Amino acid sequence: MELETIKALSIKTDSKILLLVMDGCGGLGNPSTGKTELETAKKPNLDKLLKNGVFGLAHPVGRGITPGSGPAHLGLFGYDPLQYVIGRGVLEALGIGFHMTSRHISARANFATMKDGVILDRRAGRIPTEVNLALVAKLTEAIKEIDGVKIIFKNGKEHRFVVILEGDGLEDGLGETDPQKEGLKPHLVTALNPKAQKAADVLNKLMLKINEALKNEPKANTCLLRGIAKCPHIPSMNEVFKIKPACIANYPMYKGLATLVGMDLLATGDTIKSEFDTLEANFEKYDFFYMHIKKTDSYGEDGNFENKVKIIEEVDREIPRLEKLGFDVITVTGDHSTPAVLKGHSWHPNPFGLAAKYLIPDEFETFNERTCKKGGLGQFLSVEAMPLMLGHARKLEKYGA
Amino acid sequence: MELETIKALSIKTDSKILLLVMDGCGGLGNPSTGKTELETAKKPNLDKLLKNGVFGLAHPVGRGITPGSGPAHLGLFGYDPLQYVIGRGVLEALGIGFHMTSRHISARANFATMKDGVILDRRAGRIPTEVNLALVAKLTEAIKEIDGVKIIFKNGKEHRFVVILEGDGLEDGLGETDPQKEGLKPHLVTALNPKAQKAADVLNKLMLKINEALKNEPKANTCLLRGIAKCPHIPSMNEVFKIKPACIANYPMYKGLATLVGMDLLATGDTIKSEFDTLEANFEKYDFFYMHIKKTDSYGEDGNFENKVKIIEEVDREIPRLEKLGFDVITVTGDHSTPAVLKGHSWHPNPFGLAAKYLIPDEFETFNERTCKKGGLGQFLSVEAMPLMLGHARKLEKYGA
Repeated sequence: MELETIKALSIKTDSKILLLVMDGCGGLGNPSTGKTELETAKKPNLDKLLKNGVFGLAHPVGRGITPGSGPAHLGLFGYDPLQYVIGRGVLEALGIGFHMTSRHISARANFATMKDGVILDRRAGRIPTEVNLALVAKLTEAIKEIDGVKIIFKNGKEHRFVVILEGDGLEDGLGETDPQKEGLKPHLVTALNPKAQKAADVLNKLMLKINEALKNEPKANTCLLRGIAKCPHIPSMNEVFKIKPACIANYPMYKGLATLVGMDLLATGDTIKSEFDTLEANFEKYDFFYMHIKKTDSYGEDGNFENKVKIIEEVDREIPRLEKLGFDVITVTGDHSTPAVLKGHSWHPNPFGLAAKYLIPDEFETFNERTCKKGGLGQFLSVEAMPLMLGHARKLEKYGA
Repeated sequence: MELETIKALSIKTDSKILLLVMDGCGGLGNPSTGKTELETAKKPNLDKLLKNGVFGLAHPVGRGITPGSGPAHLGLFGYDPLQYVIGRGVLEALGIGFHMTSRHISARANFATMKDGVILDRRAGRIPTEVNLALVAKLTEAIKEIDGVKIIFKNGKEHRFVVILEGDGLEDGLGETDPQKEGLKPHLVTALNPKAQKAADVLNKLMLKINEALKNEPKANTCLLRGIAKCPHIPSMNEVFKIKPACIANYPMYKGLATLVGMDLLATGDTIKSEFDTLEANFEKYDFFYMHIKKTDSYGEDGNFENKVKIIEEVDREIPRLEKLGFDVITVTGDHSTPAVLKGHSWHPNPFGLAAKYLIPDEFETFNERTCKKGGLGQFLSVEAMPLMLGHARKLEKYGA
């Protein structure tokens, strides 16, 4: 369904929605027990909360497709991730907490080693992060502006950093400089459409200045620019869904994704408990809360099945606090699956549980992948989750007469 | 999802996929037992193979839509059958084993009876196939070339034959000559767009020559041209999915469909056993095998419930041979359903079972329409089957970051 259609139906009401995202919570069976992380966790409160709800499986992008966090979240926020594409450079900027606007273009950069105009090492021998910090400081000192465009450098880990351009008339559609293979010359930045020419010119001048500034470095004497991108214009959740949304997250990328769709960022602490504190403290001020639990995904990525289970149990202990708040709709799900046995994101759909007043409860005793398979919501695309939540919160008017 | 999206994500790996298509295997309950063909067949090996898999129902084109073999297979091969349309003339050519290229246009032809310029019998009294053979030989002798375009005639059964044009500058978009009703004049071939004019001119000249060659025939003194079409350009499976695909089939049309998407055709025998022999002999050389079992469909079309059951059982006896090969992903399904009680293709979705390492098994005791209804894959379009198989074979990279 087109966003315009939902927009035309959405209305402002007093009802309140919680979207609780346990990042990567979906999993696969532990080889020794056959049980998934959700099946292994003791989570009486989540199970009780969702017993009167309906379950389903949400595909972030499409069947068989493993998504990154960007598209996976955009889908849950109601935006088709195949239509709203977030460039890698933008995600990197969001990941370091940089607030991207329509005046910014961002590139993911690698320090690299060049000799006689040819790239010898695309990662400059994976220089230590401390060297990276010093080099980024050097570049920041040496290069401040080109043709009226402000140049911003932000360090990352090892050989990675971020280059951001800030100015007017910077448009998207830019080729990468990375030749992808060593032994080749880096590319010039090419404008893939005429509007992008100004940004391409600035970036090519910038590369000359970077090479000049780094020329005496033993390893990191150049850099490669990749995923050069502008923040896509995404209509805000308020504009489309008529909600006042807030984000409770403690990792920069998720806060960044939330600001992209116009959520307010609520200051919170590092613990799951503190995220629930923040929710309680701000309950009256918003009608849509996105709460992000990071560590289910982190431990999944590490292949740490047990600790992923513990995070689910830690979330579970806070769940009774929701009862007192009185949400109209509560959804518990992941953005994508991160099975500990795969040590990474996967293509398996997200377990999805929705509790609300007006529905026919599935009455499953427990919330997990296997019960969600049999759930009353069936299988659907994540982009359909927002209309489902809005509908159950009675925030959508009748379509047609 | 667009093919371009899948193409951008697909990668070459060592993992191996088997797509086992029992043509028309889905069915309906036998009036005397209520059990379908799959429910009636004793198939312990298939059931064991799929017990650790996930089930679902695949709709070839859309809910309620009965597909032909062309679109049904294209969907399974990952190509949207609503986007990639194979003209009837092309399917006829594929069906007689003619290898269509971009230099060919093919028409399905009927011998017909004409008097005073009006069609009296659109099928020339369904002349015997032997007469058809003699007439096609006569046409082949009389007409070899028109305006530098080679003319090829291939006989079919009764009144049916195929006319193929081979040459440069032949483009699609051609009206039929069949007036659809008797007592009317046949149409001239019209070019529906300017590019098709050359082919239209050649076909109209051809009709004059055919009429001249057949003028003394008592019944078959003309012919009607229908479904005049060029082979659509379909990007190969290798190009899109980065796989090296092979086809094991013993009927021309399916081999033709397989060549359309760039599969290698493996020589095989007439029996199901020989198809498995071919699979074993070629296992190392390919990473994707499409194996086609024809007779489930043939007996379904005949309304022969018992023999359709026997074919499923015959396939079952070969299944243990798969274990030794070690596929990463095995899919067992049909292209469309052909319930014996309907004696034809039907709109019912295909039972679909997928076995692979990384999934949450449904653990059904048996594979059939009823268990597939409850399966963990839910219901989906056949075009989503390829991404599902590729995902489970870990042949797709992450979408976005």
